[in-house]
Amino acid sequence: MAEPLTFYFDFSSPYGYLAAQRIDEIAARHGRNVVWKPYLLGVAFKETGGQPLLEIPVKGDYARHDIERSARQIGVPLVWPQAFPFSGVSASRAYYWLAERDEGAAKALARKLYRAAFGEGRDIAGPEAVATVAAELGHDKDDVRTALKDPAVKERLRREVDDAIQAGAFGSPYILVDGEPFWGHDRLDHIDKWLETGGW
Amino acid sequence: MAEPLTFYFDFSSPYGYLAAQRIDEIAARHGRNVVWKPYLLGVAFKETGGQPLLEIPVKGDYARHDIERSARQIGVPLVWPQAFPFSGVSASRAYYWLAERDEGAAKALARKLYRAAFGEGRDIAGPEAVATVAAELGHDKDDVRTALKDPAVKERLRREVDDAIQAGAFGSPYILVDGEPFWGHDRLDHIDKWLETGGW
Repeated sequence: MAEPLTFYFDFSSPYGYLAAQRIDEIAARHGRNVVWKPYLLGVAFKETGGQPLLEIPVKGDYARHDIERSARQIGVPLVWPQAFPFSGVSASRAYYWLAERDEGAAKALARKLYRAAFGEGRDIAGPEAVATVAAELGHDKDDVRTALKDPAVKERLRREVDDAIQAGAFGSPYILVDGEPFWGHDRLDHIDKWLETGGW
Repeated sequence: MAEPLTFYFDFSSPYGYLAAQRIDEIAARHGRNVVWKPYLLGVAFKETGGQPLLEIPVKGDYARHDIERSARQIGVPLVWPQAFPFSGVSASRAYYWLAERDEGAAKALARKLYRAAFGEGRDIAGPEAVATVAAELGHDKDDVRTALKDPAVKERLRREVDDAIQAGAFGSPYILVDGEPFWGHDRLDHIDKWLETGGW
């Protein structure tokens, strides 16, 4: 099987949420897998001088409108979380903790967390909120709580964030296809075409 | 005929250049005209804290790559101007000067200026450069030189920039379709779909 795609995203990113609904299906059409890599946009922003999109005057209002329109376009529910933007640290740690043992289960948790945050407007920021969502998938709450405090898990996330930034990630979603970078949910159709044609 | 689309752009914007190659054709497919409105992104950036895209660390490198890839995708030549970003003030003034008498001629000049800048890498920043390009379309160089110094023409551009920002423009291209805003060359396919379906 050809190289998997790498899907970098921040759990607090609505465009990442939208991309998460479609990326595996697009890749699968072309016989590709996708490796999911949650990271922390806030760290990347230190390099690029970026700031949370919806907080930017004028542009933020447009982005909110565009995100809602994009969700309608692809038929995905969108409910804004009350606290937004929120920290994706706990969600990301839970993902990598689970991914070490079972990548499929980790992806399922990521999808569930994203759906809780942007499909239902729930809080997924803190360890307790993440443990609650994980429990709905049958994970043991105490295991999750313990994992989120584990220095090895924390270190894993730090390393993944460094690796993501090393790989050029500066936004969410940021997707690598055979080394070719694509930034933004609006590039998913281009990725589909790229995989179909071998690029241009 | 239904309301025309409004196409806001900055002459120094490569994504604006790409959009300029396609917007009239897309609109025409749905029986629509397009009003072209060059404006000055630098003024909008004062509201949004924006900065020239290609100068942003990391993101700028990606953007350069994405612009080249987007140009290849739509089969449009792309040659980076030596001085970039450059001022679109003279080009915009020439556009509005001409538009007062002949909108079709003004659009033809805008297309020619864009093509000179990003299709051939020529300088279109100063009044002399703009007069030279205009002369290639048969306009009198001295007329252009005089127009570019005309206080009424300068005032017209100031007003158009204010109006663009009032209309919500903060990037290039920024396109209004029956009041619905679309930002970015990557939204042209969405505009096509929007016009076809009546929106979603």
